[in-house]
Amino acid sequence: MITSSHNPKVAHVRALLNRREERDSAHQFVVEGVRLTEEGLKAGIKPDLVFFSNDISSRGRKIMDAFSKLGTEIEELSPQVLQQISGTETSAGLLAVFPQPSFALPKPLTFLLIADALRDPGNLGTLLRTAAAAGVQGIALTPTCVDVFSPKVVRAGMGAHFKLPLLSLGWDEIRAVCQTQPIPLRLLLAEAENATSCWQMDLHTPLALIIGSEAEGATAEARQYADEWIAIPMPGKSESLNAAVAAAILVFEVVRQRSS
Amino acid sequence: MITSSHNPKVAHVRALLNRREERDSAHQFVVEGVRLTEEGLKAGIKPDLVFFSNDISSRGRKIMDAFSKLGTEIEELSPQVLQQISGTETSAGLLAVFPQPSFALPKPLTFLLIADALRDPGNLGTLLRTAAAAGVQGIALTPTCVDVFSPKVVRAGMGAHFKLPLLSLGWDEIRAVCQTQPIPLRLLLAEAENATSCWQMDLHTPLALIIGSEAEGATAEARQYADEWIAIPMPGKSESLNAAVAAAILVFEVVRQRSS
Repeated sequence: MITSSHNPKVAHVRALLNRREERDSAHQFVVEGVRLTEEGLKAGIKPDLVFFSNDISSRGRKIMDAFSKLGTEIEELSPQVLQQISGTETSAGLLAVFPQPSFALPKPLTFLLIADALRDPGNLGTLLRTAAAAGVQGIALTPTCVDVFSPKVVRAGMGAHFKLPLLSLGWDEIRAVCQTQPIPLRLLLAEAENATSCWQMDLHTPLALIIGSEAEGATAEARQYADEWIAIPMPGKSESLNAAVAAAILVFEVVRQRSS
Repeated sequence: MITSSHNPKVAHVRALLNRREERDSAHQFVVEGVRLTEEGLKAGIKPDLVFFSNDISSRGRKIMDAFSKLGTEIEELSPQVLQQISGTETSAGLLAVFPQPSFALPKPLTFLLIADALRDPGNLGTLLRTAAAAGVQGIALTPTCVDVFSPKVVRAGMGAHFKLPLLSLGWDEIRAVCQTQPIPLRLLLAEAENATSCWQMDLHTPLALIIGSEAEGATAEARQYADEWIAIPMPGKSESLNAAVAAAILVFEVVRQRSS
């Protein structure tokens, strides 16, 4: 049992939780708690390392046993040490280090979401979760987005990281991806002004939807590359929506139109 | 200038930030930062007390001057003391104590949102913000909801507290409100299973939409009082949405149907 927070494996996990450089170079990310770890198991992705403490639940123990059978390295930690490194307030006695999945975009591509310079990890995670529920085929992340494998994004994503292709792409690459499909994707930018109502716009044909940062709005690149602007009509006393909320309304409008 | 965090006014504001009992008994709440305080000004609501520090922006100073003309009590604090009591990481040099608004529900009532046992302050705040943008006429909060005037709800609400009737009501009162309208409101419960697709359901007639807690789902009372169950079809690999996201999709489906 590991009882020291200076143990090299513990130090590595702490670095993965705290530093993007560590996640990028190791190509790993940390998943905490029973529910999220179980999503990795369901997706058939083998962790590189699992930490548990003796206060783990029986459901957590089953997940751990399943990973053990796959040959994952399992380490017991004292509850104090696991609690210390945990990013959540109450550790659930289980933490797993997974390789960052690299799913390819399906073909043909008809529904892509582009997270453009999203800085808020909660918003990005919620966006991923929504996309996974809606059947979005993949997420392109522009270079100034918050790291999609950071702990808060992973928590808010609720397992989407194990299901969705997540691609860090520059705008030229995004355009290339959209244009090399059997039917090229239209690039739609979510904008409040000078835009067509999402309820008036035909969303049946292949499209990529650009969601910009809430604080700063769409970037210059997004405006430059977008083919059309799409808006959510707001009849109320305010004209602003949380970025993840706006994305959800637009994404499910695509689902609605395509299902009818 | 107040330089001590033991000053009675400072202590009162700290108590308002930290304790629901204090907010309930004083019938006040705290609004931090320039942008949110400005929403109070726009709504014509006079604060009971304003704190500022000398690092306030010029925009913040204009807001403060406007409140000063209304006769609001203004106190300068040392930046250190204001920073200490601020709930946000970086104080914007401005904080205001407002009376809790008590707007009446408009008549006739055709679109009510019911937050049922919502515990997550970020979700409740985002729900309010969405409701204000969508033109929802009021929010009913069931007794086990997180306090709608708590700092995190206020921040995520982005000014909705100054625009929307927010009513803490028991289920019998909610039913009475719905049934005493010229056209009684149908009570719709957002549910994933055994429910009618939101795209198939006619949402033109007056309705109250019940949004349940994410972790625990709908309460027994909500199930008992609901007339119909409404669902968001999810064609993707997961079948779960953040509560505020699910609410937004349903609320804007009502707006879509009623605008066409």
